[in-house]
Amino acid sequence: MFNKVLIANRGEIAVRIIHACRELGIGTVAVFSEADRGALHAQIADEAICIGPAATKDSYLNIQAILAACEVTGADAIHPGFGFLSENSSFAKTCELCGVTFIGPSYTSMDMMGDKANAKQTMKNANVPVVPGSDGVVNSVEEAKEIAERIGYPVMVKASAGGGGRGIRKVDTPDELEAAITAAKTEALSFFGDDGVYLEKFIVDPRHVEIQVLADQYGNVVHLGERDCSVQRRNQKMIEESPSPIMTPELREKMGEAAKSAALACGYYNAGTVEFLVDADKNFYFMEMNTRIQVEHGITELVTGIDLVKNQILIAAGERLGFTQEDVHLSGHAIECRINAETPEANFRPSPGKIESLHMPGGNGIRIDSAVYSGYEISPYYDSMIAKVMAYAPTRYEAIQKMKWALAEFIVEGIDTNIDFQLNILRDQDFETGNVDIGYLGRKGYK
Amino acid sequence: MFNKVLIANRGEIAVRIIHACRELGIGTVAVFSEADRGALHAQIADEAICIGPAATKDSYLNIQAILAACEVTGADAIHPGFGFLSENSSFAKTCELCGVTFIGPSYTSMDMMGDKANAKQTMKNANVPVVPGSDGVVNSVEEAKEIAERIGYPVMVKASAGGGGRGIRKVDTPDELEAAITAAKTEALSFFGDDGVYLEKFIVDPRHVEIQVLADQYGNVVHLGERDCSVQRRNQKMIEESPSPIMTPELREKMGEAAKSAALACGYYNAGTVEFLVDADKNFYFMEMNTRIQVEHGITELVTGIDLVKNQILIAAGERLGFTQEDVHLSGHAIECRINAETPEANFRPSPGKIESLHMPGGNGIRIDSAVYSGYEISPYYDSMIAKVMAYAPTRYEAIQKMKWALAEFIVEGIDTNIDFQLNILRDQDFETGNVDIGYLGRKGYK
Repeated sequence: MFNKVLIANRGEIAVRIIHACRELGIGTVAVFSEADRGALHAQIADEAICIGPAATKDSYLNIQAILAACEVTGADAIHPGFGFLSENSSFAKTCELCGVTFIGPSYTSMDMMGDKANAKQTMKNANVPVVPGSDGVVNSVEEAKEIAERIGYPVMVKASAGGGGRGIRKVDTPDELEAAITAAKTEALSFFGDDGVYLEKFIVDPRHVEIQVLADQYGNVVHLGERDCSVQRRNQKMIEESPSPIMTPELREKMGEAAKSAALACGYYNAGTVEFLVDADKNFYFMEMNTRIQVEHGITELVTGIDLVKNQILIAAGERLGFTQEDVHLSGHAIECRINAETPEANFRPSPGKIESLHMPGGNGIRIDSAVYSGYEISPYYDSMIAKVMAYAPTRYEAIQKMKWALAEFIVEGIDTNIDFQLNILRDQDFETGNVDIGYLGRKGYK
Repeated sequence: MFNKVLIANRGEIAVRIIHACRELGIGTVAVFSEADRGALHAQIADEAICIGPAATKDSYLNIQAILAACEVTGADAIHPGFGFLSENSSFAKTCELCGVTFIGPSYTSMDMMGDKANAKQTMKNANVPVVPGSDGVVNSVEEAKEIAERIGYPVMVKASAGGGGRGIRKVDTPDELEAAITAAKTEALSFFGDDGVYLEKFIVDPRHVEIQVLADQYGNVVHLGERDCSVQRRNQKMIEESPSPIMTPELREKMGEAAKSAALACGYYNAGTVEFLVDADKNFYFMEMNTRIQVEHGITELVTGIDLVKNQILIAAGERLGFTQEDVHLSGHAIECRINAETPEANFRPSPGKIESLHMPGGNGIRIDSAVYSGYEISPYYDSMIAKVMAYAPTRYEAIQKMKWALAEFIVEGIDTNIDFQLNILRDQDFETGNVDIGYLGRKGYK
């Protein structure tokens, strides 16, 4: 087992990973930027090292500084969390070269899944259903037009190196195509340093349903059921739940098997998530595989009782999965609301600043993953999520009721939050009946 | 179902009950004393009514004021929580006379179990194992001496109306007996208004293991496994866990059946706890039945997934138990630490005052039931418990590790707490191996 793990991240996921290490008896090293001197993750880790200025490129994306921190502290493994360097295969490769274990899949798997257009081809070959579209990156507007005619409008232009909803454009008619490609390429280049784009048929009003997988280094793969993340604004998830309101045991079996095939097709190990779109007829299509822990992993932990982060560490240390597919049972219903420091009334503009007063709810069935505290200054440099509130109950109805009182008792002063906005969703009849798809918030006017 | 429930309590249990009502769609009425105007339970309930001055006899024990609040608000049921009026059968009877449902057992059951000496006789008749001792209250020192000779020293003198560790004396030799009886009678009279005492053989180094039962009004009784509450100081529980480290499926079956027999013997319905002493040879003896929800109920909720407070309300409303014994499965391990505002170094003297700063831990497997917040003034009028921290994990070892990081991240400024004291217990080798009995803390010098 590792002696000491360096956590190359910040915020609640860094805190989450520190907790997992503590439970495994592993030492922890936090890294922090100059803006994060007072951050919780830096305070609770066994050791904490400043790795640079506030800007992420100088700190949390600063590979040299992070590996130097490993060297100085003697950490023998790095957990990248999500975001930042978590899906950067050259970082994973560099770790290996430095003799430090990267807690995640092999860089080869990351590369195979990181290029979205290639990944789709790999999935097609592995008989995982994919959305009809181009075979890989499109090389010209002419080629794109031909493909779009064949699969039928509307179509989506997507960045091949993309993720997190960036570099995506919807195209309804042929005359919009060229401009959309240009825009997507520009955004892709600026966000991912790669302007490759590919084409996909636009699935009408699909749900976003993703399957969590865990795989060890010996070819054992299990799936841990699904998360429904259809409540999104601009492709950013806002509420997630498990199970999905539309799920049946048969569909879960089919999607779970497809997710396992996806993992096996790229020689995957560690925790990963296979994202699917599901249409009204419950056809599902591979979207992408996230080769890291996800923000919303906690709801899977609640319904399965399986600790994903601890399993990530154990798998990276070379342990075999301690359970089989037959041992995985989903029980109850979990919902997560992402609480952000933002002003919904001002187009969800981030609301950094000092938390003057804070009261978080607790009690039966409530889990809160957070790294903020009363007096904490939310930095404008990083994302605006301040807490993930999870509610777990035997049924979806009860979980929603639980979440309602929890959010009503969540008090934050000094900054704006989306708590009231979230409460309004929870009270909305379409949400209550589970009648949502990824266009749900957009149709309500939140674009 | 009830329209509106009045919660005749304060603190975290009042908050807990309000949450349960919310999830059931029932309106809530909080009552509060003049010292509790800023209390959380009064803030989050749908309605809140002041019922009198700070002293408990004028407010939370003021039956007239509480029933008047029911009348004014139209509440059709009262949940008494624990402590205060929860085991006062004349209060339950008065509720019935006023047409308000008392959420708890019948006052007949309460009476049968409330008199500890009589309860023991009832248990004996129902073939529930009891500690050898007097048949009911002892009427003279001479009688007590005879009985003590017969069962053998050491013996315990106990208040018949007792509970919460009050009115109890241990007697090692015949010449100490008279003084002990006098002292126990005096304490019993002052705490319970009844100076009856009875005698019991002193069980050497027993564990405190209690069985949670739930029974509906139609004779259906289930048990929800045990809680081990052996970590006690002066008969006050400090750490509880479920399952008990010494439990086996066979012993659970036997103790569970005994607890169900105990409940049936007094025509019990609603939630109740049958407390046993278990000696080194795993013989168990009925101690008493608590006819109310317990402080430590949450750990049972964690290992069974069954909401005890909601079930209390449903049962009181006349619903049948929604599950049978076969449906109850214990999974994982839960531990609770009671965090008190007190100074362990000063003989655990209460430490009331203003909480200047507060940070409570959260995350995977952590449940916190609390009613305090940053800036909250802890009143000297009420008990000193400020939070119950629960840790839930697949194994006892993992639950302890989890609790360690949780308590290490629990920051309270402005008052003293027993957090460090609790951490020391968690790190103690005897606790780690589960090698504790009710004399454990005493032997460590905490008397």
